[in-house]
Parts: sequence; C-alpha cells; structure tokens
Amino acid sequence: MKFGLFGGAVARRGEETADSQGYGDFIDTVIEAEQLGFESIFIVEHHFSGGGQLSSSLNLLSYLAAKTSTIRLGTAVTVLPWHNPVLIAEQAATVDLLSGGRLDFGVGKGYRDIEFHGFDIPKEEALARYEESIEVIVKSWTSDERFDHTGKYWSFNDIIVEPPTIQKPHPPLWTAAGTDQSIARVAETGMSVMLDHFASFERTEERLKAWRDACKRFDRKFDPMEVALARGVTITLSEEELEEATMIREQRVSKMFDKFGALPGLEKSLPDQPDSYANPDLAIDDAALLGTPEMIIKRIQTLKDMGFEHILFLLPDSIETLRIISKEIMPAFKD
Amino acid sequence: MKFGLFGGAVARRGEETADSQGYGDFIDTVIEAEQLGFESIFIVEHHFSGGGQLSSSLNLLSYLAAKTSTIRLGTAVTVLPWHNPVLIAEQAATVDLLSGGRLDFGVGKGYRDIEFHGFDIPKEEALARYEESIEVIVKSWTSDERFDHTGKYWSFNDIIVEPPTIQKPHPPLWTAAGTDQSIARVAETGMSVMLDHFASFERTEERLKAWRDACKRFDRKFDPMEVALARGVTITLSEEELEEATMIREQRVSKMFDKFGALPGLEKSLPDQPDSYANPDLAIDDAALLGTPEMIIKRIQTLKDMGFEHILFLLPDSIETLRIISKEIMPAFKD
Repeated sequence: MKFGLFGGAVARRGEETADSQGYGDFIDTVIEAEQLGFESIFIVEHHFSGGGQLSSSLNLLSYLAAKTSTIRLGTAVTVLPWHNPVLIAEQAATVDLLSGGRLDFGVGKGYRDIEFHGFDIPKEEALARYEESIEVIVKSWTSDERFDHTGKYWSFNDIIVEPPTIQKPHPPLWTAAGTDQSIARVAETGMSVMLDHFASFERTEERLKAWRDACKRFDRKFDPMEVALARGVTITLSEEELEEATMIREQRVSKMFDKFGALPGLEKSLPDQPDSYANPDLAIDDAALLGTPEMIIKRIQTLKDMGFEHILFLLPDSIETLRIISKEIMPAFKD
Repeated sequence: MKFGLFGGAVARRGEETADSQGYGDFIDTVIEAEQLGFESIFIVEHHFSGGGQLSSSLNLLSYLAAKTSTIRLGTAVTVLPWHNPVLIAEQAATVDLLSGGRLDFGVGKGYRDIEFHGFDIPKEEALARYEESIEVIVKSWTSDERFDHTGKYWSFNDIIVEPPTIQKPHPPLWTAAGTDQSIARVAETGMSVMLDHFASFERTEERLKAWRDACKRFDRKFDPMEVALARGVTITLSEEELEEATMIREQRVSKMFDKFGALPGLEKSLPDQPDSYANPDLAIDDAALLGTPEMIIKRIQTLKDMGFEHILFLLPDSIETLRIISKEIMPAFKD
C-alpha cells in the first residue's frame, strides 16, 4: 500500500514572521514526512478565504522540491478556471523539472462561490473553461512543434511551451470526482482519480466499483495506485479523546460546508429540503479514521479489502500523529 | 558598492535530464554566487522563444529561496500584460514569504512581438494593461480589507489577497527604463529603476542625470541603491581574448536584436533609416566591461564616479568569471 498526505500551509495577514520560513511548520512537516515514509504531499489552492489559505501551490511545491528528494509533490487541486492554461502549464513543467519529475498535477473546476465571485467568472462556465484548459495544458506539455489554439476562452498563436517536463509524455493528471457518473468520466479521460474524505466507507466502496466498472467499459487497465482515497485521521488513546476528536471533526466539516456552500464534489441540498446537510455523500461520523492505532489499522484493512491501496491522510494538526502512523500503522501494511 | 547578477536558466526541449536539478548549472551558480558575495540575482521571464528560455521565474525563485539564505531574489522582469494581476501578486507574495522577505519584483510591459502574438494580446494594450496590473498588485499586497476592482482588463469582487508579504508595505518594485522621459516616469511612481546593458557609458551617465533630475522634480530622495545598472562582463587575459570577446558580444546582441525586433527599451530604427542598428542607445562596443581585472576595475570606477553604486553583471558563461570578480574586482570597491 501507498500512504501520502493531503493538506495546505496557512499564513494569515497580521501574523507575518520575518524568518526565512513563512509556512514554516508546514514545510518542516513535509520534510519529516518524507523521512517517515510518506510517499506524497498533495496541497490545496484557495483564494480570498481571508483565513490565510495557500493560494500559490506551485510556488510552495517549487520550494519543497529543493527541500526534499523523493516525496511526490502534488496539487489537490489546481483550479483551472482561474488560470491562463499556458502559464499554468509552464509553471507545472517548471516544478516537474526542478523536482526531477516528482509532480502530480491535480486539477479541478472549482466549487467555492466566493472564488467564482472574486475572479468575476460565472460558475456556469466552470466546466467549459476546465475542459478547454486541460486540452491546452496537455498540448503545451507534449507538443515539440509550434501550435495555435483558438478556443472559447483562450487564444494562442504559433506557440511552443517551455520548459519541457521531466515525466513523459507529461506529469500524471489527477482530478477529484464524487458521483458515479463523474468518476466514469475521469476513467474515460485517462486521468487518475481522487476520492474525497467526506464520504462514508459504504459510499466509498460504491465509488471504487464505479471506477472499476468504468475502467472495464473504456478498456482501461485497473491500477489501484491511480485511485487515491483521502481520509481524515486522528489518533486517540481513550474513549474521551475519541469522542472529542469526533466532535471536532464534525464541527470543522460543518463549518466549511456552511462557509463555502459546498465541498469538493458536494453541493448543499436544495432549499426545499429542510436538512441542509442531507447530502447522502456527506458522512461526518463514519468517513474518518479515528481511534487507537489498532482501530485505525482495522479500518485501513477494511479499505484494503475493498481494493484501495493508495491512501492520502489529511494532514493532522500534530506531527506526532505522523510519527505514530509511520511507526505503528504503516508496518502493518508493508508488502 | 553593491554587486548583483542578472540572467536566466535555460532548459531546451529534447535536452531533458532526469536528475533532480533541471536548470542545474544555473542553480549551482546562484548558490556559489551567494557565497562569493554577490548580493542579488535578477532573472528573466520569456515565453515561446523555442530556445528554452526561463518562463516561470517565480517558481525558480521559490526553489532558490530554499537553496540560499541571504541573496536577494529578483525578477527582471515579470511581464505584467501576460498575467492575471491577483494571481501574480499571490505568487510574488509567496516567494517573499518563502524567502524571508528577499523578493525584488521587477516588472515590465513586454517588448517581444513573438510574445504579444503568442498570448494574442495587442501590443497597443501593453501600457494600459501594465498600469492596471500594478494598481491591482499593490492593492492586493497592501489591503487588509476586502476590495473590488473594476478595470478595463480585469474585474475582481470582494477579494482579500493572501499570503501576506514579509516586506512592508510590499516588496520593492523595479522597472526598466531607457529614455529620459520614461526614467522620469519611474522616479515619479516611486519604483526603483533598472538601466540596460546595451547603452554606452556616455548615454548611461545621461540616464543617471535624468533620474537625479526627476528625483528633484518629484521631491524624491536620491538613493543610489535604487538605480541598478546592468553590464555585460568578460574577463580576458590577452589582446586576442579581448578581441574575441568583443566579437562574440557583438554577434549575440545583434542576433537578439534581429530575432525579436527589439531589446528592452530599444526598438529597431524606422524602415526609412538604412542602418537597422542606428539606435543611438545601442552601443555594442562601449557598453560592456571587457578586459583584464585591472581594466574592469577602472571601468567600474568610472561608473562609480558618475554616481552608480549598484551594478548587475550579466551572468557570464563561466562561473570562473564570478570567482575572479569576487577575488580580484570586488575588493577594490569595499567601502
């Protein structure tokens, strides 16, 4: 099995530090995570939240490329409608080059209203912008000849895009999907898929089935490494700690859902449905890995039995959690 | 006096290497340059050249932020018309944060036809796009409150831009200028100025006078560190080497001028002028610092006597040149 991480650095306005490591705790964590055996770090991109969320993920990955040597460097996700597709292709290729070919490029079409409003881009255009961007990005990475692009949102004339990527034909593309239909679409495109950390184990198993079915339908070989499953993790040593951890997680997820009106792949229910969290994919209580190391091993074993072999842990608050995972949980899954 | 460097990394298509340091020679050079006492590295940004020129300068600077600790990290220049001003403000702020406040942000409006054509942006819009972008970038860096922007080219609604910069109120802004008029305009804006490496010593002295005059006019204190003068440098140990170096420089500058129809701040002469290099600001033979260390010390002393105290050497082909500058030339200007 492969274990990676998913998260982001935070730097709030008014809390600037003058040392050479803004985002310092996050960076230290990634450096230690590599040594602890975690195989990837996927980082978010968000704008205008006011909470100091990471906005320039490819710049932070460039920095991490210099501070690490083996860990895969991923975005989860770069929201394509915000970006000029040629510029983002250049930036991603630069990270791939600087890291010796360690970029995993996760892309999405965006879901937060505050971001669509901020960038003055209608949410209705998200999918079309996303699809046009992917076309331009892949062409930018793979074409050794000059080309033109005349699309609905972007035009480029007689361009050749540099630098070259190290990974050929190009860095792996990942995207998040939640419904069976969208999962099947990802399988069809050839991208790898990320499954969120909100859905219950049961729903998660259904999603994996949807992926397998789609692979069959589109004549794609099933590779468990191309299905990354995100999961929250909290290690607790007593019943009380477990209750507290469950409560904290519930509050956090609810707060995010309230603030942004959606989570990746999950929209709020329609207004005529009284329970605003009545989204069947949102399972706060069952989705995460909470408990003692032994309990978590059992839960991961359940996922493994379903067919999952690639888990991304949500970056925990304490690095001590990563040390315990490395020492007490990972060895149980050494092949 | 302060000595820095100006240049860019190169990675051509078809010459990919799988080591963890694409752009490797350039990176090694910057790391050693810091140890040799060079105080800054300003890097270019170019697109679609087909020659492997650096396209994502802020990503490379993010990497260098991790590999260095004191050297200033500059762009020369980030061409604003290509970029979403909020995204570039976020990226630059991230570099400033990651480097502990070492970013010098050089900006320009672009001059290469191949880039305007490639990005499908009319050259006539360059100045207006540049000016609108600067306004948005500075506001993005400095506003702790949400704001709107409705401009000719960009609109943003209710945004607050993160992360915060380390340098306050924001990283220094630099821009290149060539004519007395444009130099005066830079002085008026409060930015620092970069003077190119093409102009003769005589013309360069006139430009400094234009800057001083403008500072007086706009009630700005003259600070020699805010005027960075670029100069090519080649160390030669014999008459023959000097002749060869002069010839190589002439060929290179002519070739670039031919290929792009312009150089920063220099347009080709009008078609009715027979000599296409009859631009009075282009002095191939006199502009550079060529010769033995003793000869170059004399030339730099001449610049110092004019009032220049901040020199950016064009990154030479050989790192040995930097070692000689550090050992044999810099000590002559230790204050």
